[in-house]
Amino acid sequence: MSSTAPAARNFLWQPDHENGVATLTLNRPERKNPLTFAAYAELRELFSALATDQANDIRAVVITGAAGNFCSGGDVHDIIGPLTRMSMPELLDFTRLTGAVVKAMRACPQPIIAAVDGVCAGAGAMLALAADMRIGTARSRTAFLFSRVGLAGSDMGACTLLPRAIGQGRASELLYTGRSMAGPEAERWGFFNRLCEPEQLLGEAQSLAAELAAGPGFAHAMTKRMLQREWNMSLDEAIDAEADAQAICMQTEDFRRAYRAFVAREKPQFAGN
Amino acid sequence: MSSTAPAARNFLWQPDHENGVATLTLNRPERKNPLTFAAYAELRELFSALATDQANDIRAVVITGAAGNFCSGGDVHDIIGPLTRMSMPELLDFTRLTGAVVKAMRACPQPIIAAVDGVCAGAGAMLALAADMRIGTARSRTAFLFSRVGLAGSDMGACTLLPRAIGQGRASELLYTGRSMAGPEAERWGFFNRLCEPEQLLGEAQSLAAELAAGPGFAHAMTKRMLQREWNMSLDEAIDAEADAQAICMQTEDFRRAYRAFVAREKPQFAGN
Amino acid sequence: MSSTAPAARNFLWQPDHENGVATLTLNRPERKNPLTFAAYAELRELFSALATDQANDIRAVVITGAAGNFCSGGDVHDIIGPLTRMSMPELLDFTRLTGAVVKAMRACPQPIIAAVDGVCAGAGAMLALAADMRIGTARSRTAFLFSRVGLAGSDMGACTLLPRAIGQGRASELLYTGRSMAGPEAERWGFFNRLCEPEQLLGEAQSLAAELAAGPGFAHAMTKRMLQREWNMSLDEAIDAEADAQAICMQTEDFRRAYRAFVAREKPQFAGN
Repeated sequence: MSSTAPAARNFLWQPDHENGVATLTLNRPERKNPLTFAAYAELRELFSALATDQANDIRAVVITGAAGNFCSGGDVHDIIGPLTRMSMPELLDFTRLTGAVVKAMRACPQPIIAAVDGVCAGAGAMLALAADMRIGTARSRTAFLFSRVGLAGSDMGACTLLPRAIGQGRASELLYTGRSMAGPEAERWGFFNRLCEPEQLLGEAQSLAAELAAGPGFAHAMTKRMLQREWNMSLDEAIDAEADAQAICMQTEDFRRAYRAFVAREKPQFAGN
Repeated sequence: MSSTAPAARNFLWQPDHENGVATLTLNRPERKNPLTFAAYAELRELFSALATDQANDIRAVVITGAAGNFCSGGDVHDIIGPLTRMSMPELLDFTRLTGAVVKAMRACPQPIIAAVDGVCAGAGAMLALAADMRIGTARSRTAFLFSRVGLAGSDMGACTLLPRAIGQGRASELLYTGRSMAGPEAERWGFFNRLCEPEQLLGEAQSLAAELAAGPGFAHAMTKRMLQREWNMSLDEAIDAEADAQAICMQTEDFRRAYRAFVAREKPQFAGN
Repeated sequence: MSSTAPAARNFLWQPDHENGVATLTLNRPERKNPLTFAAYAELRELFSALATDQANDIRAVVITGAAGNFCSGGDVHDIIGPLTRMSMPELLDFTRLTGAVVKAMRACPQPIIAAVDGVCAGAGAMLALAADMRIGTARSRTAFLFSRVGLAGSDMGACTLLPRAIGQGRASELLYTGRSMAGPEAERWGFFNRLCEPEQLLGEAQSLAAELAAGPGFAHAMTKRMLQREWNMSLDEAIDAEADAQAICMQTEDFRRAYRAFVAREKPQFAGN
């Protein structure tokens, strides 16, 4: 999906072509922004397209929810009900689709910042976890509540992503019990990078995104790629891979721009190449 | 070992067939519940048997120690002394046995909750770490004290389990120095899921275990298995594995029970299938 | 480099042959102790030589910086400028050299303790992160500031080391933004093992190093090796590897010394064999 594509149908997609930040808003506030089959598919398409967007003018993404909630997860009526009647091939189509959303979020070169207020549950919690960074509110309630609907905590990569974010013991508790994690607890555990007031939440997330969008885009994309690629490398393999990755970045013009700005005692202006 | 087996000899094993929770109590309080060769072997047998228990009526396990201490580790007289006189094949029999206890605890389908008060040292600290979750007390003192007896921190999986629970730097300090970690510090670092008063400790652990035992047992077992299997997968491999795992869980009756209960505005009653 | 080698040229190297602790001090205080090409190369040589030091009398290392700062990273004039003009083979020579410093720090058998005050930036932050433990001050400012000079966060192993130390979300923020992490925040996140007053910093680090140097050196080296080797093993593989590793340590004389001391109610005197 290029930034000039027609409007998204299952959520709001608001690209700001001035600062390079696009804001994705889950937008069914009357039901706390649940996901539907169509929404999953469109999320996969959108994040996949960002990887090859020829316009290349979106350099950071904010994902949030409308009206004081992030996302209530897979809709009980639209998703859970139909799933209880599906065959295995149909079920796999669905679980592979939801997994593909996370893969696409991790594979696109743009850093993604989740702005989380209110309810953040199930697949919604996984969308937040699949972002690169998360800003929350004290009143937010994040629940990996799969066990509450009779399912496993292993959904969309939760059993690998959550332990790396907050530690194995805390992740185990959240995945087994499905209980809500309060905002202050989530900040203390490292799930949220920081908390802010609800009325400042979106602004702070967009401000951080704008800061990243104004940064060295090629290098940021390399950072994101390496955080992903090194997930299960040995330490020595990772060091070798980073030697290659950083040498590549040292041939970008952004690196030279930063050096010239430093010598001139100016703030560098990056262009992402 | 089925839940109808003769009483354990090296610790107390108290299955509650009403709520599906078994409580394992290390029970040599006069010496702070140390381990012996026979205790290690019986722990391995017990947790291995839980994986194939035909009765299948134990759905969560609490592991604790008698009289205000969790476990003082390998007994100096019964274990350390003999080890100093063993040949390499005999030593390997021992270290592989202790490792097999951890493997069996991680491989059994039941979530395990450690209730930790007082001394929690050496192999005792590893039994706590091999549990899925840990509840402690402020006065507890957990020490991976292998270096104090001239040994390496690499015992029973400590060098992989501890960094994932509390972070690499903190784990390194505890493993090199062998120092005690106080209860509040252990909670702050994520070793303990929470602290409670000593007199409430066992009750809180059993209550959490009962909550899990009343949950979707098949799905909980899948969560545990995936937390283990994804230990060193790439992120994309893990997402793929979870797509399969969750699709399997979506064909359980527990999933349908949860859906029907939701529609009927009732609390779901899970049966573990 | 043996401990009897000629004095280091690019930093201070002060071995204390009484207690087995060597202190490495980055020492260009007028510019906050930046690194140069020659300093990287000498650091690699020094830590590589420690792995095979025949004298074997250095059993723990403290790395610190002179005059209230740890290290300002790669020197802008001496390093950044030349890098902007290099060919790819030359760049790879450099990035592989910096990576080799981290590899050598992780491969040498001696535990390394970083004592961090003031500025700790870029490659300097990576030297701190490559240590086994870190003690900091409240006023210290640690910044993985690669993005500020147009580069990726993937430098010297940062994308694998930092998430394991402080968690994936917090690491992502520091690597994307390049912002400074304050001392108290760094302690809370597990980057620092503890904070102390600036005037006590070096003494505390040397005291901890002396404690480790007086410990079982062979076992400490095994701990360090296994923390490295198990980086991307499965849990069961790690448990098996530790069974072998600990059996080897059980045949050291230090293990027997500890047992005899315990029986005699004395403090064990370790000799590292």
